[in-house]
Amino acid sequence: MGLIVQKFGGSSVADAAKVLNVAKIVTDTYRAGNDVVVVVSAQGDTTDDLIAKANEINPAASKREMDMLMTAGEQISISLLAMAIESLGFPVVSLLGWQAGFNTSSAYGSARIKKIENDRLRAELDRHNIVVVAGFQGINKYDDVTTLGRGGSDTSAVAIAAAMHADRCQIYTDVEGVFTADPRKVSHAKKLKEITYDEMLELATLGAQVLNNRSVEMAKKYNVEIEVRSSIQKDVPGTIVKEVAKMEKMLIRGVTKDTDVARISVKNISNNPGEAFKMFAKLAQKKINVDIILQSVGRNNTKDITFTVSKANAQDAVAAILDTFDMDESDIVCDTEVAKISIVGAGMESHPGTASKMFEALYEHNINIDMISTSEIKISVLIPLKDADKAVSAVHDAFYPA
Amino acid sequence: MGLIVQKFGGSSVADAAKVLNVAKIVTDTYRAGNDVVVVVSAQGDTTDDLIAKANEINPAASKREMDMLMTAGEQISISLLAMAIESLGFPVVSLLGWQAGFNTSSAYGSARIKKIENDRLRAELDRHNIVVVAGFQGINKYDDVTTLGRGGSDTSAVAIAAAMHADRCQIYTDVEGVFTADPRKVSHAKKLKEITYDEMLELATLGAQVLNNRSVEMAKKYNVEIEVRSSIQKDVPGTIVKEVAKMEKMLIRGVTKDTDVARISVKNISNNPGEAFKMFAKLAQKKINVDIILQSVGRNNTKDITFTVSKANAQDAVAAILDTFDMDESDIVCDTEVAKISIVGAGMESHPGTASKMFEALYEHNINIDMISTSEIKISVLIPLKDADKAVSAVHDAFYPA
Repeated sequence: MGLIVQKFGGSSVADAAKVLNVAKIVTDTYRAGNDVVVVVSAQGDTTDDLIAKANEINPAASKREMDMLMTAGEQISISLLAMAIESLGFPVVSLLGWQAGFNTSSAYGSARIKKIENDRLRAELDRHNIVVVAGFQGINKYDDVTTLGRGGSDTSAVAIAAAMHADRCQIYTDVEGVFTADPRKVSHAKKLKEITYDEMLELATLGAQVLNNRSVEMAKKYNVEIEVRSSIQKDVPGTIVKEVAKMEKMLIRGVTKDTDVARISVKNISNNPGEAFKMFAKLAQKKINVDIILQSVGRNNTKDITFTVSKANAQDAVAAILDTFDMDESDIVCDTEVAKISIVGAGMESHPGTASKMFEALYEHNINIDMISTSEIKISVLIPLKDADKAVSAVHDAFYPA
Repeated sequence: MGLIVQKFGGSSVADAAKVLNVAKIVTDTYRAGNDVVVVVSAQGDTTDDLIAKANEINPAASKREMDMLMTAGEQISISLLAMAIESLGFPVVSLLGWQAGFNTSSAYGSARIKKIENDRLRAELDRHNIVVVAGFQGINKYDDVTTLGRGGSDTSAVAIAAAMHADRCQIYTDVEGVFTADPRKVSHAKKLKEITYDEMLELATLGAQVLNNRSVEMAKKYNVEIEVRSSIQKDVPGTIVKEVAKMEKMLIRGVTKDTDVARISVKNISNNPGEAFKMFAKLAQKKINVDIILQSVGRNNTKDITFTVSKANAQDAVAAILDTFDMDESDIVCDTEVAKISIVGAGMESHPGTASKMFEALYEHNINIDMISTSEIKISVLIPLKDADKAVSAVHDAFYPA
């Protein structure tokens, strides 16, 4: 008995049968005595179809018109889900982003939610309606339609849960929850019962594509408990994301792999103060995110700087460096055959042996470590791409013996 | 130099090439120094695709959710057209029905426009934007999305022209204008330069599917001049629909054929007062529109009543009559193998020979006349369906000798 917000992604509503499956989950929750607000994304391939239509006409279309186009996707999915719920005999109403009160910033394509005016949502729940809300969308101060950017429907769901003081926010996906490693790759990966917001943020950043990062940040800010669970395995409990989580005798929460990494080494930078700053300022100006950074002393009063960026940014980064320094192209080495393996866990800080346990596992499997980066709840290493899957298994086995 | 409203139907924006063609027409008009508001329908098959999706999930979906679904169609077409106009280098903005200020009645699926709050439209034109507006849609007092019903985009265009005091409202179609007969069937059918609202209303009702009736009624009410013209033959002038039109030495404005007709004959109704009233009251209650009515005296102090309805209503009409009178089913004859041929022209009233000229043409071609109905500007006859095309040609040739 309470208010439950449920979010279903595009693959969960991809066809008529799946829409009816979602309608069953929603109405079961409603029948159990709960108020239910459902947030849905556009159907599976609708988004791709719409982008293809736009590209055929104008590949450089304005973001405003792209948002106008893309938001038709959720409009289709909310009305179809509402029709499915009607067919099961339950009272329901679908609402677009603006009808549900989503006020956003003006940045088309990547708007931020500023406020949810929840009068309409509240009124529909008071009428005992199941409310189906279009995720990913809102309106800005010009009364123009905006989108929240990739994974925005997760954020829509958490924002509604926060604005309506919901008892729970359930994010339905095609996996059962958050695992200690990718269960398709590591056979004895374990599903986590609980995980903290900070750990989830590290896992999300590191490539465990379960929850959108912005949604976890918002959940942390407003203390919304998220449950990640499967839309297929309906009766299996998922993973709860919350402020403080039990450790279940685990030292780490998970092992992740990120292969969208390129390592750039810049040699023979003159050892004057500010040289490194100049380079990273230039990269920031080009909106290139730099991840791990390593600086070492080179020959003849020079230094070498090595850092990682996403593969898509690698060429731009090299160009930006050549722009900054008057240097030979041969002084810059860009390697895309690398991967980043990370372990995440809020408890590792108080267990000094964590890092050495990870390094030992890699050493025992003959995997060379290129770079190392650590934070309070995370240790990342850069290794050769070809060893990535072997490394995840080795590290996972070290912490969770089979 | 003025404000021109242009409307393009679904077939005119069916694919990328057609959308770009429309963008050229629009920007040519803008470049000539005009303010331009463009109204578009959903792309060719989008509407059918969306209806198929709905039917797969819930064939009895509520009209509210159907409207939510269907209006995504124009959202897609307005954004694509705006992108095409952007690609030609012109300033443009697309607006949904609610953004363009379309306030409608609450009747989902067949809402009426109550008012256009044109502040946003006005502001966008002041910014020298070409404004692309979603036809067919609006919002009701609950802030819910509504649709105007079949052909609603014509009405949207005329409503904007009226609200903005536009200098002209151009309805682009796949024909060059309004013809004296269907040019695909009658080889020497002539395009009309002008036609009155009333004549256009009769032609539209009678099956010349060029302009939606409601839009002509609205144009007449607000004295909006409509020009029907081709989106393919760009330089060919179309047909102007206005209050008073020159007759161009023509006695009639056109010949039309309507094959969506069923004739129902009810025999042996007792000759008491009120019997016919009872029957037609019952049909009205079932929302069945009755067209031509003929009453004759039968045997034994009874009367026979014959009338026409649309084919879709025929079975319901028969059922309603059996409901009203305690009569034998054999007393009711329903014939769907009939067609209605009509001639329309504001001048025919002052030319007594018009009707006889029509009847003579049919007689000369051995076509039997079943029923006759006349109004001030129209004469309709019911004939066998198999003779319909022959009848149109015969009548057309009589009034417009080749």
